[in-house]
Amino acid sequence: MTRAWAVGLDMGGTNIRSAAVSVAGDVLLIEHGPSLASRKAGDVADNIAAQTLHLLDTARRRGLGSPRAIGVAVPGPLNVHTGIVMQAPHVAAWRGYPLRDKLEELIGRKVVVDNDANAWALGEYWRGAARGRRDVVLLTLGTGVGGGLIVGGKLVHGLSGMAGELGHVTVNPDGPPCDCGSHGCLEAYASASGLRGLVEKRLGLAPGSPLPAQIVDSEKNFSVRGLSAQARRGDTLALEAFATAGHYLGIAIASFLNTFNPELVVIGGGVGGALPYMRKTMNAQVRARAFTAVAAQAKIVRAALGPQGGVVGAAYAALHPMTPP
Amino acid sequence: MTRAWAVGLDMGGTNIRSAAVSVAGDVLLIEHGPSLASRKAGDVADNIAAQTLHLLDTARRRGLGSPRAIGVAVPGPLNVHTGIVMQAPHVAAWRGYPLRDKLEELIGRKVVVDNDANAWALGEYWRGAARGRRDVVLLTLGTGVGGGLIVGGKLVHGLSGMAGELGHVTVNPDGPPCDCGSHGCLEAYASASGLRGLVEKRLGLAPGSPLPAQIVDSEKNFSVRGLSAQARRGDTLALEAFATAGHYLGIAIASFLNTFNPELVVIGGGVGGALPYMRKTMNAQVRARAFTAVAAQAKIVRAALGPQGGVVGAAYAALHPMTPP
Repeated sequence: MTRAWAVGLDMGGTNIRSAAVSVAGDVLLIEHGPSLASRKAGDVADNIAAQTLHLLDTARRRGLGSPRAIGVAVPGPLNVHTGIVMQAPHVAAWRGYPLRDKLEELIGRKVVVDNDANAWALGEYWRGAARGRRDVVLLTLGTGVGGGLIVGGKLVHGLSGMAGELGHVTVNPDGPPCDCGSHGCLEAYASASGLRGLVEKRLGLAPGSPLPAQIVDSEKNFSVRGLSAQARRGDTLALEAFATAGHYLGIAIASFLNTFNPELVVIGGGVGGALPYMRKTMNAQVRARAFTAVAAQAKIVRAALGPQGGVVGAAYAALHPMTPP
Repeated sequence: MTRAWAVGLDMGGTNIRSAAVSVAGDVLLIEHGPSLASRKAGDVADNIAAQTLHLLDTARRRGLGSPRAIGVAVPGPLNVHTGIVMQAPHVAAWRGYPLRDKLEELIGRKVVVDNDANAWALGEYWRGAARGRRDVVLLTLGTGVGGGLIVGGKLVHGLSGMAGELGHVTVNPDGPPCDCGSHGCLEAYASASGLRGLVEKRLGLAPGSPLPAQIVDSEKNFSVRGLSAQARRGDTLALEAFATAGHYLGIAIASFLNTFNPELVVIGGGVGGALPYMRKTMNAQVRARAFTAVAAQAKIVRAALGPQGGVVGAAYAALHPMTPP
């Protein structure tokens, strides 16, 4: 038996996930591969196309037939109408890169591209924590901070698809530098890189210095998982870092509540998993800064889908393409 | 000859404007009256109803016949679905006040109520600076700061119509107190009350102290018009106050650009008239904080309609009622 389905592909800094997702949002088949993000622009695109063609082949062999549409989610702001990636944090070579046209040429089919945070937001809206909600603010707290906005049941794209960069609202004009070139952005606090900066500052270390063994992974890189484990043990350094991140997260959320009057704020990503350690300071800022009636209407909840959110949402974007302006 | 039209009524802290607005957005007839905002809740509503009935009577005598709909814009956050005003800055008695039901009872017809800044935004969208644009951020810088958001050609109401409170996003977590109860809101800088605070701080005066003669009106109240005249003369105090307001306005606008990727930012209100004195510091913050590609797509312009924006937009809201969620 064949079911109508779409390809949802989610490209991260390290890995690619590609999936066959049914029109009801069920993952029928999923494959993984390296994203080769450090390669040349064309090689990265070749790799995405190859992963897609491999999935199409597997699907055919499993009797799924052909997909109805193909959706690809990539990091960084991009123009959803032209399919041109403006800049991608993990792919230095993608600056003004015509990704969609390139993929369509390589795959030989129409492709829909969108930002990875938007795709994840659509996934949570379709099948996750925001199911059935019409006004939702979604924040993914990972290496950086991504965002997605659902207003009146529709993803907000803005003029050219670069809306929803919620990690880059200013929460403290005098705050630390952000990878985007500004400073004091939400991302400079409530992300893995923000937390690393908070820890370094607290320990009086220069940026990039070696960190205590408890909060690095096997490759000596800063580990949010390690910091969370320390917080669970009651370690002051870890608890303070999360409290500060939560404080600024609360400032941003209060602004989002007054701006959108949403029904729900959904928080995902690896740092989102540490929400219990951020909640107290976050809630204090929301209470102090958002209109009471607005704050009373909005729940702040964890994301439901985990790592599959991106592929599900990329498939949703492909199945529900936006109309051009 | 009669033309199809709607009532648009805009209630401010001091005055009410009520107008007959054609379905094409032309003001056919306009009347003014006091808003009696300091009276009891019921008296303020009685007064709005009386002004509306007076307009209906005038319209009938002028041969315009009956309106197709009635729209009333009032200050402060309100629930557009229930017609209940949460709180209104100029009407102390309106806290959880069922304004729409009361007006419908008094007028004997269906009434649509909305926030005054939303109405003004709709006016600019229908007939003003944002005509034909689909993604617009509108800020009205007056006594306070109001906002309206157009996303994909539709006003953003949020769950219960309290979205768009753009004056109450945090631009400096350590900033001065705001009338909303928070501190460091955009309104605490880029409004008449914000400018007054900046001037008082610069002069080392306690809040509410008497101010220099050049920047007060005939009733000794702080005058933005006076401060603008001083800026025009090159007065340092005035230029510094506007530069600071522009700095924080720029921080807020940069966040709005990264959030909405709009085509246009429209700035209205009395303080908006002083945009030339705020533009330099505003632009510097926009350049420093917004994504380059996003900032390049958005123009920041002055509102076009002036004081009639509110009545035109209130009529638009009445003619295009939103569907309940």
